[in-house]
Amino acid sequence: MLPQEIIRKKRDGHSLSAEEIQFYIEGIANGSVNESHIAAFSMAVLFNGMSVDESFHLTNHMVKSGETLNWDDLNGPVIDKHSTGGVGDKVSLMLAPIVAACGIYNPMISGRGLGHTGGTLDKLESIPGYNTTPDNDQFRNVVKNVGCAIIGQTANLAPADKIIYGVRDVTATVESVPLITASILSKKLAAGLDGLVMDIKTGNGAFADQLDFARDLGESIIGVANKFGMKTTALITDMNQPLGTAVGNAVEVMEVINHLKGTKRDQRLHEVVLSLAVEMLQVAGLSDSKEHAIKKITDVLDNGQAAETFQKMVSELGLMKLSRLQMW
Amino acid sequence: MLPQEIIRKKRDGHSLSAEEIQFYIEGIANGSVNESHIAAFSMAVLFNGMSVDESFHLTNHMVKSGETLNWDDLNGPVIDKHSTGGVGDKVSLMLAPIVAACGIYNPMISGRGLGHTGGTLDKLESIPGYNTTPDNDQFRNVVKNVGCAIIGQTANLAPADKIIYGVRDVTATVESVPLITASILSKKLAAGLDGLVMDIKTGNGAFADQLDFARDLGESIIGVANKFGMKTTALITDMNQPLGTAVGNAVEVMEVINHLKGTKRDQRLHEVVLSLAVEMLQVAGLSDSKEHAIKKITDVLDNGQAAETFQKMVSELGLMKLSRLQMW
Repeated sequence: MLPQEIIRKKRDGHSLSAEEIQFYIEGIANGSVNESHIAAFSMAVLFNGMSVDESFHLTNHMVKSGETLNWDDLNGPVIDKHSTGGVGDKVSLMLAPIVAACGIYNPMISGRGLGHTGGTLDKLESIPGYNTTPDNDQFRNVVKNVGCAIIGQTANLAPADKIIYGVRDVTATVESVPLITASILSKKLAAGLDGLVMDIKTGNGAFADQLDFARDLGESIIGVANKFGMKTTALITDMNQPLGTAVGNAVEVMEVINHLKGTKRDQRLHEVVLSLAVEMLQVAGLSDSKEHAIKKITDVLDNGQAAETFQKMVSELGLMKLSRLQMW
Repeated sequence: MLPQEIIRKKRDGHSLSAEEIQFYIEGIANGSVNESHIAAFSMAVLFNGMSVDESFHLTNHMVKSGETLNWDDLNGPVIDKHSTGGVGDKVSLMLAPIVAACGIYNPMISGRGLGHTGGTLDKLESIPGYNTTPDNDQFRNVVKNVGCAIIGQTANLAPADKIIYGVRDVTATVESVPLITASILSKKLAAGLDGLVMDIKTGNGAFADQLDFARDLGESIIGVANKFGMKTTALITDMNQPLGTAVGNAVEVMEVINHLKGTKRDQRLHEVVLSLAVEMLQVAGLSDSKEHAIKKITDVLDNGQAAETFQKMVSELGLMKLSRLQMW
């Protein structure tokens, strides 16, 4: 088998077998598939698409390209949220402590800003001393003790994705539903999650500026994730204007703290956070009804547990141990 | 400007400006356009095509990526033939000396075998001592003294083509009419020709296995070449079976010698050679009519001038000076 045979087959509109996709992804690791192969392959997929089966195999072999985390030692559901990114999207920073306070374990591996959209890691790093690259033991301990930990991508999870994404980013081959599906899910599956809630942003400030594209992407991710047995749902949320009142790393962290403490809450932001938290609790099996979920979430916001969880996470991941006083 | 912006524009079906194409080709030389850009760009062109204007600009900047030969010191038309390649296609080896004997200067820069098709250079190198890589002075002298010289591609003519082709060859992006057009014509224009005759082989032994593809390619090449003022015509010839009676480097050279000497002539091969030679004489302006051209060609075959020209070319390009006795 040669890489160009696989590219040609996809170029000509045929479906690829599990073996061909395996050859392609393994080739990235062993050097027989180079960056120009990845570029041409990605462009062919962008034009001709992939079936759910092909996306499944692509994702599967990208997962197998690296390590997989295992959370069997935790006595609760391991659930994450992933957003396709937007402006002023500080949802992760408040959502993780909220659902952790409700009993979910949320090991959240986040990214940097991409294009005009902000990055969760960039925001967290505006907190002096926050360490986005803890070692594996520290990461596990924080998730276990606090319930959530927001850190940066580690090289060992789905390393093939990192290589493929690096090529796609500079070759105008990002906007492909099956490739986005495999990129997101390979990292989430490697992170050993029980379930996932997608926040697909749509609108002129979002990557998916067309509702149709957002819907296709959501259906693709849910279809492939379910084939892996990772319970997944998706919300499509509005990104025609920035989320919340602050845009900028440090000011968004301030908005998060005010939001969690209840000092000041933007209603639209609150609605998005609440909707996603409800989904996460339901995916986790911790709430039978939307009403029950809303009550739990409102409780941990009102009684300070969510804010406290955020504070604990920052403290545990801090290079400097901050006192509560310093933080607030 | 970024390479990915140009790729995206072509991907989305838009036409590229002369400036964008210039940026792309110059980027290959200065390192801002890498192999993955070339791969994705080529795949996007394969799907969305290019207008004659775009192909013209692509060809133009590929020519400008290197040196251009100048034959102003010759007192006759400088014409070449280019074939898209086939099995048993030894036409170049007999055509060059035939048209040279008729008064054409034919500096023929040929290639190696590609896939299952044979290469003119590989065939010539079965002649002990034949040098396919003379320096520039020797090449010019042989063309001037003998009328023809068949040599290998030099790195200095359209170097961007060499890089682009290297990527296309391994990324299933060869089969694109505008990219083939630019690849062929950039080298031929850099070779400083007054005119060109294309032999587009079609059939199950050819690269262009569909007649439609062969016709599209011919029209594209003629359209772009004419915009440069290089008089160009094309014949579509049959490659559903090998040409002539021999397939293999040394045996094909023997067939060429027998053909030129008249010892043994395959009729179908003769017809192809004759048709192409007629075209070349007409493109050169050396014959007003097909009948006149056929007479000239028949004369140089019958009186031994074509065979003698071949012998002189081999002798002049030989590292060992062969006597006529040794050759025949």
